[in-house]
Amino acid sequence: MEVAAKVEQIKAGLGSDIVEPLIDQAWIEAALRPDSIAVIGASDNPDKVGGRPIKYMRCLSYTGRLYPINPGRTEVQGLKAYSALADLPEVPDMAIVCVPGAAAVEAVQNCASVGVRVCVVISSGFGELGTQGNTLQERMLQLAQDHGMRLIGPNTQGLVNFGSACIASFATLIGEVEVMDGPVAIVSQSGAMSMVPYLALRNAGIGVRYAHATGNEADLTVADFALAVAKDPSIQLILLYMESIADPGTLALAAKEARRRGVSVLALKAGTTHLGQAAASSHTGAIATEDKVIDAFFKQQGILRVRDMRELVSSARLLLAPMKPRGSRIIAISNSGAACVMAADSAERHHLDMVALSDHTKAGLSHILPAFASSTNPIDLTAALLTKGSLLGEVLSVIAQDDTADALFISLPMSGKGYDAPAFAQSVAAFSKATNRPVVLACPLAATRQVFEQADVVTFEHDEDAMQALGHVAKQRELQEVAGRLYDIVGHDRASNDSRAATMGTRFLSEFDSLKTLEVVGIPTVRSVVCTNPSELQGALEQVTAPWVMKACSPKLPHKSELGLVQVDIATPQDAASAYRQLMARAKDLGVHVDGIIVAPMLNAQRELMIGARWDRDFGAVVVVGDGGKYIEAMPDVVTMLYPFDAGYVIDQVQALRMAPLFKGARGDPALPLDRIASMVVDLGKWVHQAGGKVSSVDINPLMVGPGPQIVAVDALLELSVPSS
Amino acid sequence: MEVAAKVEQIKAGLGSDIVEPLIDQAWIEAALRPDSIAVIGASDNPDKVGGRPIKYMRCLSYTGRLYPINPGRTEVQGLKAYSALADLPEVPDMAIVCVPGAAAVEAVQNCASVGVRVCVVISSGFGELGTQGNTLQERMLQLAQDHGMRLIGPNTQGLVNFGSACIASFATLIGEVEVMDGPVAIVSQSGAMSMVPYLALRNAGIGVRYAHATGNEADLTVADFALAVAKDPSIQLILLYMESIADPGTLALAAKEARRRGVSVLALKAGTTHLGQAAASSHTGAIATEDKVIDAFFKQQGILRVRDMRELVSSARLLLAPMKPRGSRIIAISNSGAACVMAADSAERHHLDMVALSDHTKAGLSHILPAFASSTNPIDLTAALLTKGSLLGEVLSVIAQDDTADALFISLPMSGKGYDAPAFAQSVAAFSKATNRPVVLACPLAATRQVFEQADVVTFEHDEDAMQALGHVAKQRELQEVAGRLYDIVGHDRASNDSRAATMGTRFLSEFDSLKTLEVVGIPTVRSVVCTNPSELQGALEQVTAPWVMKACSPKLPHKSELGLVQVDIATPQDAASAYRQLMARAKDLGVHVDGIIVAPMLNAQRELMIGARWDRDFGAVVVVGDGGKYIEAMPDVVTMLYPFDAGYVIDQVQALRMAPLFKGARGDPALPLDRIASMVVDLGKWVHQAGGKVSSVDINPLMVGPGPQIVAVDALLELSVPSS
Repeated sequence: MEVAAKVEQIKAGLGSDIVEPLIDQAWIEAALRPDSIAVIGASDNPDKVGGRPIKYMRCLSYTGRLYPINPGRTEVQGLKAYSALADLPEVPDMAIVCVPGAAAVEAVQNCASVGVRVCVVISSGFGELGTQGNTLQERMLQLAQDHGMRLIGPNTQGLVNFGSACIASFATLIGEVEVMDGPVAIVSQSGAMSMVPYLALRNAGIGVRYAHATGNEADLTVADFALAVAKDPSIQLILLYMESIADPGTLALAAKEARRRGVSVLALKAGTTHLGQAAASSHTGAIATEDKVIDAFFKQQGILRVRDMRELVSSARLLLAPMKPRGSRIIAISNSGAACVMAADSAERHHLDMVALSDHTKAGLSHILPAFASSTNPIDLTAALLTKGSLLGEVLSVIAQDDTADALFISLPMSGKGYDAPAFAQSVAAFSKATNRPVVLACPLAATRQVFEQADVVTFEHDEDAMQALGHVAKQRELQEVAGRLYDIVGHDRASNDSRAATMGTRFLSEFDSLKTLEVVGIPTVRSVVCTNPSELQGALEQVTAPWVMKACSPKLPHKSELGLVQVDIATPQDAASAYRQLMARAKDLGVHVDGIIVAPMLNAQRELMIGARWDRDFGAVVVVGDGGKYIEAMPDVVTMLYPFDAGYVIDQVQALRMAPLFKGARGDPALPLDRIASMVVDLGKWVHQAGGKVSSVDINPLMVGPGPQIVAVDALLELSVPSS
Repeated sequence: MEVAAKVEQIKAGLGSDIVEPLIDQAWIEAALRPDSIAVIGASDNPDKVGGRPIKYMRCLSYTGRLYPINPGRTEVQGLKAYSALADLPEVPDMAIVCVPGAAAVEAVQNCASVGVRVCVVISSGFGELGTQGNTLQERMLQLAQDHGMRLIGPNTQGLVNFGSACIASFATLIGEVEVMDGPVAIVSQSGAMSMVPYLALRNAGIGVRYAHATGNEADLTVADFALAVAKDPSIQLILLYMESIADPGTLALAAKEARRRGVSVLALKAGTTHLGQAAASSHTGAIATEDKVIDAFFKQQGILRVRDMRELVSSARLLLAPMKPRGSRIIAISNSGAACVMAADSAERHHLDMVALSDHTKAGLSHILPAFASSTNPIDLTAALLTKGSLLGEVLSVIAQDDTADALFISLPMSGKGYDAPAFAQSVAAFSKATNRPVVLACPLAATRQVFEQADVVTFEHDEDAMQALGHVAKQRELQEVAGRLYDIVGHDRASNDSRAATMGTRFLSEFDSLKTLEVVGIPTVRSVVCTNPSELQGALEQVTAPWVMKACSPKLPHKSELGLVQVDIATPQDAASAYRQLMARAKDLGVHVDGIIVAPMLNAQRELMIGARWDRDFGAVVVVGDGGKYIEAMPDVVTMLYPFDAGYVIDQVQALRMAPLFKGARGDPALPLDRIASMVVDLGKWVHQAGGKVSSVDINPLMVGPGPQIVAVDALLELSVPSS
C-alpha cells in the first residue's frame, strides 16, 4: 500500500525531484537481477510459452536458482520440478506466471502471500479483453499491492536481461540470433516491438542488455523500466516503444536520469492517427491533439521521437560511439559530386549545418584538389581519388586545421578494387584521433565498410542513414540541453500541481466573465460593457469608443458568429439600438438565455493571434499559441507546449509556426511584440498549472496584437471543472 | 545537322507526339547493342580507366568485336591492339574515349570523320571546368554533330548493358558483385549514382540490365536514355538520377512510353535546396521555385519522385512483381497488436487506405480469432498464432471472400522456431492465387522471409519499407493514370508552344494595363479608371462606386503599398481630392513617373486568392494558384502546375493547399466557386502557353473571390519579354 501511494505521488509529480527519493526501487533488483525464479506453469516442451524461459535461461547459464512448477511432472527440461510454490526450498525473488485465466490470478495470490517480490504475468486474457478481463486484472493488481509485490503484465512477453541471463520471457526471436550483452536497453509495451529492434541491433553486431516488455501494465510501466535501466551504468542507449504514456512523471524522471548520465533516449510512440482525430471540440484546447502533447512531452524531456522501427535503431551505432558529434555543424567529403549534392539536400532535411569553410581552408584545398573539383563544403574529390589515392589524406590534413565542424561525413559511393580503402581508413582514423572530431562513413560496399570499421570509424550503408544519424545525435544533444535548461529554470515551480480535481464535467463561462477572469491573470482584455436593457445600452455607448461590436453574452454560446449573434462596425447609437433589438430577438428565436448584450470597441490588429491552454489529466497544463482568427480549426497554425517552460522556450518554439515570419515584420510591417506575447503564454500556462485541474480549458481568440504595442484579448472562453458532488 | 535539328524540335515539343516519329533513334542500337567497339586509350592494366571496359567485356563474354587502340602496344589484355582508329578492319559502331584533354577532342574528331555512330567520352576536363572546358566541350559536340555522330559524356562513367555485355564504363563496383541481367534500367547523370542503386538491387538479388551514366550531357541526356531503355521490352522498372532536366520534352516521351508499357519510372532529382533559393523575386511567379516545377513535371508525367537512394530501390521488388496492387486499399494482418497500430499509422503516411471490413467478414473473423483479438482492419492475430498455427490460413479464407482490398499486408514481427512458416507461406500463396490479390510480407527474420520468397511472396525486412512500397505502387499507378488522362484531354493543345521568344529582358506593364490585358484573356477585373488631373478625378468618382481605393499607376511600381502609394476606404470626393494630391506628391518625392492615379471601388472578398503564371524556357507555362493577399511570400500556400492541364486537374491539386477547407466553406461560410476559379487558371495557363515566351509572367493578387459569385482581379502585374533587337 505504501509503495502504491508513493507511486501515485510520483505520477502526480511530473518530474518533481522533491518526491524522487521516495521511489520504491526494491523491485528493480528483483525484476532485473533476481537470484531465484519460479516458473509457474513450466513446460517440458522448450518451445511452449511455459518452456521457453527455462530453455533460454539454461542455455545462457543463468546463475540463480530456477524452480519449474508443474504439479504433473517431477522434472522439467532436466530440472527438478515442484508441484506448488509452497514446496520450494525458498521464496523466489521472481515468479513467472504462464498458467491461464483464473489459475493466473490464483498464482499471483499465492506469490504475493508468500512474499515473492515481482511477478511476471505472461498469461493473457485480462485487460485486453475489455470489462470482464479488466475486473480480473484489477483483482490481480489488488492482490499484489496488498502484499507489496510488483506486477509485470499481464499479457506480457516478459523481461529479458542478457547481463544477468534472467530471461523471464517467451520471445521466440531470442533463439534466432546469437546473444551478446551490450549497452542498449529496449523497453516496450509490446513484446514483438521489444524483439524487432533487438534483432536489428544484433544483426548489426550491436550488443543488447535489456529487452523488456510490459504488456497490459497493470502495475509497472514502460516508464518504470525506463527509469530502472537508466540507472544501470552499463546502459548508453535506451529505446522505447509505447502506445500510451501511463505515467509521464516517471518517464520524466527516467529522461532526467538519462540526461544526467549522457544516455540517449529514443522513443517510438505509435497510434498517432487515431488519437487526436476525435471529433473536434469547439474550443481551441482541442487543437492540442494528443499527439501534439506527446510530441511536446518528448521534446521537453529531451527524448528523441522517431517514426518507425527502422529509425529507432538505425542511428544506434553513432549514438553509442565513444566520440559523438557535439553539434550539428558538418563537413561532407565524397568522391562523387552527386553524393555531395545529395548530402547538401539531406543536411537540410536533418537540420544539419553544412558549415562554410574558412578562406584559409579553401585555399589549402584548392592546391590539392583537381581543377574541376569543389573546394567548398561539401568537398568533391571527384573520381580523381581512383588515380590519386593520397587525395583523401591530403584533404583531411587541411580540414584538420579548420575547427568549425562538429563532425565529418565521408561518402564513398565508388570504392572496391582500385581504391586503397585501408589507407583511407587509416587517414580517417588518424584525423579523428588528432582532431578529436568524429567521422561517419557511408559506403554501399560492405567490404569497404568493414575496413573502416576495423579502424573504429562508424559506418553506414546508406548516405541518408548516416546523415539521419548525425541529425539524431545533434538533435538529441540539443533536446537534452533544452530539457536540462527548462528543468533548472522552472524546477522550483514543479511541486504545485499535486491536486487533480476529480471532475464529473465542466462548465463554460460567458465571454464577459471569461475575459474578466483573464484580466486577473494579467492578460490585457478589451474594455467592454454588458447591458441588459436599452437604457443600459445608452450608458454603455458612452463608455465605449465607437465604432462598436455588439454580441450576445451567454455561457451557452461558444460560437456566436455562425448563429448571427454578433454585429460589427456599428457607428451610430441608432444602429446600436437596432442591433440590440435584433440580437435579443435572434437569441430568443434560438431559445438561448443570454446574460445581456456585450458592447465593445471595434478594434483592428496588425495580426490576430490565439493563445490557449487546457488541463490534461496525465500531462498537466497543455498550452498552445499560434495564428488566430476565424479559421484556426480549418487551417491550424499552433505550437503545443507543456507547462513548465519559460518565455525563451516559447520564443524558440513559435519559430516553427507558419506565421513566424510575421513576428519580425513582413512586407514592411513592424515587428510584433513577441517578448510580451511569450510572457503572457507563460503566465497563462502557470495559471492553469497552478489551478491543478480546476481550470479545464482557456481559449483566447483573437488576441489582437499591434498596431504598435497593443496586445488585447477581445474574445475568450473559459471552461471550469465541475467537482463531483 | 538534320539530327540535331530534329532533337531541338523534340525538345521544343514537350511531349508532343506529332514530332515523336521524327526522333532519330539510330544511335540507340549503337549505344546499347553495338556490334563493334573501339577503346581509344586502351590500357593493359585492367584496373585503369582505359583498362576496365575491356576487362569487364572480356569477363562477361561480349560477343561483338573489341578493338583496343593504344599506339604504344601490340596487345592489350590479350587482345590485338591497334595504333589508330584508321587501322581497324572496320568502322566500329561505338568508340570509348579514355585519352585526356585535347587528345580526347582529336579522338572524337577522328571517330566522327570515319563514321563511328556513338562515342562514349569518359575523359574529364570539359564542361565541369567552367568556361575554358566548355569551349572544348562545345567544339567536341560540334565535331560530332557535323558528322551525325552522337556523344555520351564527356566526363561520364559510361554505359553499361548487362544484356548485351556491352560495358562501355569504368565503374569500379561492377567487379564487386555478381552480374545478373534483369528487368531494371538505371539511368543517371552521375556515374556513382548509376552504381549505388545497381549494387543495392544486386545485393537484394534483383537483376539489372542497364546502368547508364550520362556525365556532362553535351549531347545525349538522361532523358534520351530513359526513352531508349523504355523501348526495351525486357525493362519493367526505370530508375533515374538527375541534377538537372536538360530536355523535359524527351523525358515526357520516355514517361509516355513507360506508361504505355506499364513500366514504373522513379526519379531522384537532387539539388533541391540550392535551386529555388535564389533571391526572391518581387513577383509571385517566383514562388513556383525550380523544385516545385520539377515536382509538377514529374507528377504530371506519371514519374514517381523519391527523396534518396535507398527509397529509389527499396520498392523495386514490389514494382517488379508480376501481380501488383491495383490501388491503395489494403488489409493488414499481424501476430502483433503493435504492428497493427503501426501499420495504421504508416498507411496514413503512405496514403494507403486501410479499408473497412464488411460486416460479413467481421462476423467470419470473430468466429476464428481469440476473444482478445481484433476483427477490424488491421487484423490482430495476437500471439495465439504461436499456439494455433492454422489461424492465419483460417483468417485468409475469410478475407478471400471480401474483395474490398487491392492488397494484403502481413507483418510477422514474431516468427522463428515454434511458428510453422512453410504452412503460413503456403496459405498466403494459395490466397494470392485464388483471389488474384497480391500479398506483401514484412518480417525481421531472414529465414522466415526466405520461406515466403520461395512461395513467390514479396517480402521486406521492415514493415515501413513494405508499406512504403505499397504506397509507391499505388501512387505510381495513380500518377500514370492522371498523366494519361491529361495527355488524352489536352493532347491537341500541345503543338503550339514551338516558338520560344529569344529575349534580352522583360518589361512590366502598369497595374491598369495589366488588368486591361487580362480582361482580354477572360479574367474578370475590377472596373477602375485612371485619371491624370483633378478634373478627370471628378469624372472617375462618378463612374466608380464609393468607397474608393486610389493608387499610383506606373509600370515601375510592382509593390505600391510599402511605398505609401495606395490609399484605401476613401468615402467622400473631398477625401478623394486630398488622396489624389498626396499620392501625386508621394510619387514625386520618390522620383517615380506615374501614368496617373487609379480610382477603383473598395471591394471585400470572402477570400483573397492569387493566381499566376510564368514562362519557363525549359518547362513552358508554369502556373500557380493559392491563397492570396499581402503575405504570399512570407507564408506561401500555392500549388504549381505545368500547362497543359484541365480544370479537373486544378481542382484535384488545390486540395493539397492549406486553405483547401475554405473552398467547401468553413465556419459557416458558403463554398467558393472552385469550378470557375479552376477554369480561369486553365485559361491563364493556356494563354501564357500560347504566347510561347512572349508573356514572361503574370501575377494576379488579390483575386477577390466571394461573397456570392464574385470573382474579380483587383491587382495584377504582367511582365512581357522584350525581344532581342
